[in-house]
Amino acid sequence: MTLNVKKIAVLTSGGDSPGMNAALRSVVRTCAYYHVQCVGIYRGYQGMIEGDFKELNARSVNNIVNKGGTILKSARSQEFRTTEGREKAHENLKEHGIEAFVVIGGDGSFTGAMIFNEEYGFPVMGIPGTIDNDIYGTNFTLGFDTALNTVVEAIDKIRDTASSHNRLFFVEVMGRDVGHIALNAGVGAGAEEILIPEEDLGLGRLLESLKRSKLSGKSSSIVVVAEGDKIGKNVFELKEYVEENMPDYDVRVSVLGHMQRGGSPSCFDRVLASRMGVKAVESILEGKTNYMVGVVNNKMALTPLEKAIKGHSSIDTELLRVSDIMTT
Amino acid sequence: MTLNVKKIAVLTSGGDSPGMNAALRSVVRTCAYYHVQCVGIYRGYQGMIEGDFKELNARSVNNIVNKGGTILKSARSQEFRTTEGREKAHENLKEHGIEAFVVIGGDGSFTGAMIFNEEYGFPVMGIPGTIDNDIYGTNFTLGFDTALNTVVEAIDKIRDTASSHNRLFFVEVMGRDVGHIALNAGVGAGAEEILIPEEDLGLGRLLESLKRSKLSGKSSSIVVVAEGDKIGKNVFELKEYVEENMPDYDVRVSVLGHMQRGGSPSCFDRVLASRMGVKAVESILEGKTNYMVGVVNNKMALTPLEKAIKGHSSIDTELLRVSDIMTT
Amino acid sequence: MTLNVKKIAVLTSGGDSPGMNAALRSVVRTCAYYHVQCVGIYRGYQGMIEGDFKELNARSVNNIVNKGGTILKSARSQEFRTTEGREKAHENLKEHGIEAFVVIGGDGSFTGAMIFNEEYGFPVMGIPGTIDNDIYGTNFTLGFDTALNTVVEAIDKIRDTASSHNRLFFVEVMGRDVGHIALNAGVGAGAEEILIPEEDLGLGRLLESLKRSKLSGKSSSIVVVAEGDKIGKNVFELKEYVEENMPDYDVRVSVLGHMQRGGSPSCFDRVLASRMGVKAVESILEGKTNYMVGVVNNKMALTPLEKAIKGHSSIDTELLRVSDIMTT
Amino acid sequence: MTLNVKKIAVLTSGGDSPGMNAALRSVVRTCAYYHVQCVGIYRGYQGMIEGDFKELNARSVNNIVNKGGTILKSARSQEFRTTEGREKAHENLKEHGIEAFVVIGGDGSFTGAMIFNEEYGFPVMGIPGTIDNDIYGTNFTLGFDTALNTVVEAIDKIRDTASSHNRLFFVEVMGRDVGHIALNAGVGAGAEEILIPEEDLGLGRLLESLKRSKLSGKSSSIVVVAEGDKIGKNVFELKEYVEENMPDYDVRVSVLGHMQRGGSPSCFDRVLASRMGVKAVESILEGKTNYMVGVVNNKMALTPLEKAIKGHSSIDTELLRVSDIMTT
Repeated sequence: MTLNVKKIAVLTSGGDSPGMNAALRSVVRTCAYYHVQCVGIYRGYQGMIEGDFKELNARSVNNIVNKGGTILKSARSQEFRTTEGREKAHENLKEHGIEAFVVIGGDGSFTGAMIFNEEYGFPVMGIPGTIDNDIYGTNFTLGFDTALNTVVEAIDKIRDTASSHNRLFFVEVMGRDVGHIALNAGVGAGAEEILIPEEDLGLGRLLESLKRSKLSGKSSSIVVVAEGDKIGKNVFELKEYVEENMPDYDVRVSVLGHMQRGGSPSCFDRVLASRMGVKAVESILEGKTNYMVGVVNNKMALTPLEKAIKGHSSIDTELLRVSDIMTT
Repeated sequence: MTLNVKKIAVLTSGGDSPGMNAALRSVVRTCAYYHVQCVGIYRGYQGMIEGDFKELNARSVNNIVNKGGTILKSARSQEFRTTEGREKAHENLKEHGIEAFVVIGGDGSFTGAMIFNEEYGFPVMGIPGTIDNDIYGTNFTLGFDTALNTVVEAIDKIRDTASSHNRLFFVEVMGRDVGHIALNAGVGAGAEEILIPEEDLGLGRLLESLKRSKLSGKSSSIVVVAEGDKIGKNVFELKEYVEENMPDYDVRVSVLGHMQRGGSPSCFDRVLASRMGVKAVESILEGKTNYMVGVVNNKMALTPLEKAIKGHSSIDTELLRVSDIMTT
Repeated sequence: MTLNVKKIAVLTSGGDSPGMNAALRSVVRTCAYYHVQCVGIYRGYQGMIEGDFKELNARSVNNIVNKGGTILKSARSQEFRTTEGREKAHENLKEHGIEAFVVIGGDGSFTGAMIFNEEYGFPVMGIPGTIDNDIYGTNFTLGFDTALNTVVEAIDKIRDTASSHNRLFFVEVMGRDVGHIALNAGVGAGAEEILIPEEDLGLGRLLESLKRSKLSGKSSSIVVVAEGDKIGKNVFELKEYVEENMPDYDVRVSVLGHMQRGGSPSCFDRVLASRMGVKAVESILEGKTNYMVGVVNNKMALTPLEKAIKGHSSIDTELLRVSDIMTT
Repeated sequence: MTLNVKKIAVLTSGGDSPGMNAALRSVVRTCAYYHVQCVGIYRGYQGMIEGDFKELNARSVNNIVNKGGTILKSARSQEFRTTEGREKAHENLKEHGIEAFVVIGGDGSFTGAMIFNEEYGFPVMGIPGTIDNDIYGTNFTLGFDTALNTVVEAIDKIRDTASSHNRLFFVEVMGRDVGHIALNAGVGAGAEEILIPEEDLGLGRLLESLKRSKLSGKSSSIVVVAEGDKIGKNVFELKEYVEENMPDYDVRVSVLGHMQRGGSPSCFDRVLASRMGVKAVESILEGKTNYMVGVVNNKMALTPLEKAIKGHSSIDTELLRVSDIMTT
């Protein structure tokens, strides 16, 4: 360890996700372990600009490993997109003697960090915190596993009422550009059909699939739809379309919404967060910065921030195939 | 006990609610206890018309006390609203030697039972199964308590993300005509405002209340809205209205939807269901029929079905007052 | 309201229970509503003796309605049982200008409050916070409902493994002197037998019951045992006894333990806590003190502390009967 | 695919684990997808000996993806350890025209399968179903992830009461020979110390660690102990030892027990089960048998059963290090 670094800052940025607090705790405790000072920055980059800083020690993060949300709060900052904003931020960091920062967030947050690094040569480090699992360089983002459990628990409840009434439900889950949540939670919840942005099933095949499912004797159907699905209709339009074409079907819609972002993190996410926080701080102390920490094949791995941002997290085609077989 | 009754039927009808299976189990086991035969009728009154009957013994209802939904399935039957439909139903009951039935459901299901009783003098008994708690003659309907827990758990998750971003959320919960779910879950979840059908807060007072809440230093706001709220706008319109009038507010909407009807019943609902099933069967055996079983002041009570249907379940004004004080 | 009271203190004492934080929040917010100052006392009576006080305003209790445990901490104080201890406590209260206190706790905590009131004429008020539901003057104590849900969820899990292996489980739940948790959770979890302190089933009848259950075709058995059960053997001895007498039975033991005291409170407990806090403060402001707040037949009620302490909370014999019928 | 195989059997064996039903469903549906007949064998190898077989089609496994336990039941069979037992089993399989079987279970179940294969050349396939994660050839066994969530949720509840009273808790979790559950759940629950079979911390260092934790200002301590820990004392003896050596500490014990084996599987386990079932059946159809299916670095992988049995699943030393840093 190059213990020349004396002070590190940490912030959470962008949409929050379960496990952010656990990652924050890990960053703070790892700093304490190596006798490095740690500063928490509130409200993401906006707080960096406004100097909303607070010293954090090992005890500051007691009893947060299991809390959803982020005690540092998060925000999207327009001002950080301006040269002036970033200049103010840089001055604040310098003034406080901060030598590097760890940002817990998604794509957008990493882009901000990268630009900041390019402009000021300021060492940065990223921890992927988002429920969407849409980041290149890690098999799992923080919060993904928890969100999957939240979704399958909700669908399990919907299934209770669906099968009591022989109904068809369209359940919309998060995922604007990627279908990871829809695909995994769909398989987990035993969905009869899964609609994701990566694949355009087509309305015709959807109808066919639903008819086949009904013929096969299933008493209810759940179709999981990712927000950003490309079938060309939103869940409410899908409902109307199916009702017109399968008039004997009682169709309902459920949009799971923001509850997917909250909740106490799963053990998986807590452990992942703990590992990522250690890796982020130790990397900085070893002089390796401007990377994103990830887990690749069960091992901690570093990916240059630029690659993490530009890379593409593709859908698991084997799981797509499993999904097809499961709906036999 | 007048043990002249030899065979009782049981059905679930209308919207399903958690605890219906536990009540069904209790009816079946109580019949077994008194050596009375028990017949399950599938898909509510529609199954009664179609003769979709099955003998149930004590073992038929093993391991269902904790299951959401209803293993007998439920349905809304148009045909039972016709004289012909009810005639067929009556013939089926006679043919199977059934001497009374217990219907687990809500208002509409009780009305069907009452008309059937008036026409054929057939002994009926009602168990109030609905999450809305909108039935006269019982302090608690089956499923209400479970639905409240489902709602507060969902809002707890939404609160995580709301307070991480200083956001305002409108959360729509079930309750077309009554605000019991909204009021209780709103107090339970620590909502900043609760909008219910029984009270028209008015848009002006809503804005005032939100501004006061913001001034007081609250970092996030949750407004719980009953489906049937009378403020004149749905949750999406409310969002727009507030955004126009409080432009610095980041407002989101979440419609909890059908997951509120599902899930494993709470202990409260399981115990209530067990007590109601015993009371329903014992009442029939004692010759008391055409009643709804309820719990009034912690004791089992019978209310004539007619009164249960016509009576009005009013909102708890003391709890409204508590709610106001809590949002100080 | 006699708004002569200017400052009220609040403390949590004895074993903690879910809902204590919600009750604390309600006391604090009600004080704020009536412009009365509120002081939190840490670590129960011990903190009262040591002057561990902190002013609390409406914002101090943000986001705690859903938290288990108690942010004021709890403790059992030997010193408060001495005259000297109570004198120090009284001096601290006087010094801080505190005119009344609300104690959230059980029997023992109320006894302390009553003695303190007798000695100093100091106005006190009790809120029954304990999972045991063993307090006279209220149908439900704070935390009881949550503990029941914790227990049935645990037994549901045990049932999964019990019925996969055709096993018999003895599950010990809390309840040293009373069987409320065992009886309610036993009925809720569909237990085959329930052993409570109020009733000595006898070992012979237990064996008979288990044999009958096996003969009836049940694939697994759960026996719920209250800690303070009077059958004369603890759960481990019961296991040995049954194994000796039913050698073909695979018997296991599970002691649920302290997890029963924790967890996020149920909606029922949060609402109850909110109502109790309001009632406690308003009663003080109306000049009615030395009472315990309770809920009796769905209405808030006051019981003189002395009666609450001496009274006996008896088991629901009707529910015992329901329990017998359910195990048919 | 070599579609020469016409009939495959499936059984669950040994201790049950969450996800077994999901794996069973996957095996059955994959058979249906490839038009291969599928036979369920009840009660593990014992049912194979007794001919307790049942044809399963795609609909037989509706609505079980989210159920804990195993609908096929499980058992440990002494008889299958004898040559006679295995001979009977083989005759039954032949008689039913079964050409291969998939066994979902742990080490012991795989050993039985391997011996059976050696004796009769009968094609077998293993799916690792156990909460202990102690099987070579897969990063995750079925049920491990669910058990971790069950444990951290229980410890979160215990933490509520521990920190309300400044207590030390020893929490015993499953894991006779391996510490995977203890280590992962300990990190996830923020335990102050973790005792596992792979490492003998020593009583002296345990005391030191607890004293350091107290000095550092922590208000409560949780020590997670694996069943098979090598410190030489069980949790009850540990409690006594610490009480003697740290007399001011209030120490409690909680043994989580069999609830760790039950419960609805997590999304992770449901997806894993679905993938494993597909892989197992497809491997048989491709003529690859006598393997265990596993997930290695996020991809399905086959390990010869013999290697899976003899191999050793070692503890994640990096996570041990993370654990040390987290308790700073």
